[in-house]
Amino acid sequence: MLSAMNLLDRQSARRHDEAYLNQLLAAPQTQLIALVGAKPVIRSNAERTAATLATIDPVVCPGGPPKLDDVMFLGVDTTTGTALFARSFTAEQAQALDPQGATLAPAVDLRSLAMQGVLAPQELGTAATAAALQAWHDSARFCGRCAAPTVSRNGGWSRHCGTCNVSHFPRTDPVVIMLVTAGDKCVLARQSAFPENMVSAIAGFLEPGETIETAVIRETEEEIGIRVHDVTYLASQPWPFPHTLMIGCRAETTHHPLKVDPSELESAQWVSRQDTRRMLANTHPDGLWVPGPHAIARTLISLFAQEKI
Amino acid sequence: MLSAMNLLDRQSARRHDEAYLNQLLAAPQTQLIALVGAKPVIRSNAERTAATLATIDPVVCPGGPPKLDDVMFLGVDTTTGTALFARSFTAEQAQALDPQGATLAPAVDLRSLAMQGVLAPQELGTAATAAALQAWHDSARFCGRCAAPTVSRNGGWSRHCGTCNVSHFPRTDPVVIMLVTAGDKCVLARQSAFPENMVSAIAGFLEPGETIETAVIRETEEEIGIRVHDVTYLASQPWPFPHTLMIGCRAETTHHPLKVDPSELESAQWVSRQDTRRMLANTHPDGLWVPGPHAIARTLISLFAQEKI
Repeated sequence: MLSAMNLLDRQSARRHDEAYLNQLLAAPQTQLIALVGAKPVIRSNAERTAATLATIDPVVCPGGPPKLDDVMFLGVDTTTGTALFARSFTAEQAQALDPQGATLAPAVDLRSLAMQGVLAPQELGTAATAAALQAWHDSARFCGRCAAPTVSRNGGWSRHCGTCNVSHFPRTDPVVIMLVTAGDKCVLARQSAFPENMVSAIAGFLEPGETIETAVIRETEEEIGIRVHDVTYLASQPWPFPHTLMIGCRAETTHHPLKVDPSELESAQWVSRQDTRRMLANTHPDGLWVPGPHAIARTLISLFAQEKI
Repeated sequence: MLSAMNLLDRQSARRHDEAYLNQLLAAPQTQLIALVGAKPVIRSNAERTAATLATIDPVVCPGGPPKLDDVMFLGVDTTTGTALFARSFTAEQAQALDPQGATLAPAVDLRSLAMQGVLAPQELGTAATAAALQAWHDSARFCGRCAAPTVSRNGGWSRHCGTCNVSHFPRTDPVVIMLVTAGDKCVLARQSAFPENMVSAIAGFLEPGETIETAVIRETEEEIGIRVHDVTYLASQPWPFPHTLMIGCRAETTHHPLKVDPSELESAQWVSRQDTRRMLANTHPDGLWVPGPHAIARTLISLFAQEKI
C-alpha cells in the first residue's frame, strides 16, 4: 500500500495523450495518492516523528477503478517506472483505506507535519503538487468568464470551458518570505495562528506588477515598518496551502526600531545569531522555537545562524 | 492628460476603506489610466521610439465619473500625492480620448513596445499592475466554485462571492526564463510568434509543486534536451501578458548538443559572447537581434555579454 517516492518525471508533453494515460492508469504497478478534499492523507508512526504519503492500488480504489477525468497524473518514477496519480476521496472513502485507523493521520495535519519536518523533501514536493492541483480544481469547476461548468483535461493539468472554448491552467501564488537582517541580528515574528512560542520569518503575497525585490521591500515596510536596502534571493519552496510558491530572501537594513502592524502580526522582535542557534536547537530560555526542516523559513534562519548570510 | 509616473505607494492597508477611496477618486489631482479590455492605452511619438501611459482626469471620463466598483486603485504618487486609478473602456470610448488619433497607439502594441524598451521601467511596472489586475477581473467575474457572479472589492484588489462567502484574489503566474550557458556560449531560441530575426532566452511556466530551480531544470530539458547542473537566480520582472512574474535565472551546463522540441520552439542555437554583443548592438551579420531594454531577457543576455555571468 505504501511506496517510497523517487524523482518523478512529469512527462508534461504526454499529458494530452489520453490513450497513454489510460494505459498507465490500468498498469498493475500504478499507484494513487489519496487526498481528502485537497489534503493528502498521510501515514505516520504513533509519535508523528516520521510520515509518508498514503498511496493505494487503483484496482482496490474505493468507489471502483478511477476514470481519467477523476485523477491527476503526477508523473512516472524514474527509478521504478511506476506511474503516480492522485485522486480526491470523501472522508468516508479514506476511512475505508485503513479500517483500524491506527496509522492514517487526518490530512489536516499536513501543514504541521511539513513544518515539523517529518515528511521527506521529495514526498513534500509530490504532496505539494497533488494538493495544489486539487485545490485549484476545486476552485475552477466553473468558468470565471461565463459561469459554464469546466471539465478536466490533460491528466488534470488543465480545465476546459466549452462555452468560451478557453483552457484554464493551475494556479501558483508567489509569496515572498524574508529574513530581515541588520548585522548580527534578524527579525523573527509571530502570527496569532502560529503554534505557541513558534516564531518565523515574515512573509506576504507578491502582488501584480511587482518584482520579487519590490514585494520584499513593500511587505517589510507594511508588516514591521522597516525600509530594507538590499534584497538577496536565497531559495524557493512549493507550499501547498493551497497552491503557493515560497520565495525565500534575505533583506538587509540599517534601521532598527520595529513598528508592528497588528492586523498582520502578533509580535516581532530583533533576535541575535546566538538566540537563533538556541531556537534551532530547542534550547531557547523562553521556549521559543522555529519551523522544522524542509520549511523554507528554517533554511533562511539556519543560514543566518551559521553566518552564511 | 498625461502625467509622469513616480514611485507609487500602493497603500494596501487602506484598500478596504471605501470612504477614503471615494474621496481620492473625487480629488481634482487624481488620474485614471485608460485600458481597453486589459490592455493599457499608450501615447507615443510617430516613430514609436518613446511612449507613456495615457491617463485621464476622472471628471472628463467617457461614460461619466467612474464609480468605485469600476476602477482599480493603483496607489498614490509619493512625490506629488496624486492618486492613480485604472479603468477599462470600450474601444469607442478610448477613441474619444484622442479624436485625432494622432498619438494614441492601440493598446495591443504594449508587448512590442515593452520589448523594444520605449516605455520607462516605472511606467512598465504601473502598466503591468493595471493590465494584470484587469485581465484577472475579466477572468474572475463568476465564482469558480459555485458559478455565482462576483463583485469587485478593496479598490479592485479582490472579488467577493456572496454565495460561497469567499474572496478571490488577483492571480500572478510565475514563469522561469533562463539563459542556458556553457563556458563562453549561451543558448538563444526563437518561438514562431517572435518578430522576424528576434532570438531570446527560453522560458516556461512554473508548475505546482516545483521550486524555481526544478522548474528551470525541467523546462530546459523539455525545450532543448539539455540537463543543467547549476541554477542561479538573477532578477525578476512583472510581465502583464496576462499576469506573469518572470523569474530570470542563469542555468549552467556542460552538455552541448541541443534537441529542440518543435512544439515549443522554432529553433535554438549556441551563441558566442561576441555574437551576443553584436545582437545587443544590432550589428549581427545575419540581422539577429534580442528583446529591448526593460525586457528581462535582455538583462540576462547583457550580463552574459559583459562577462558578469
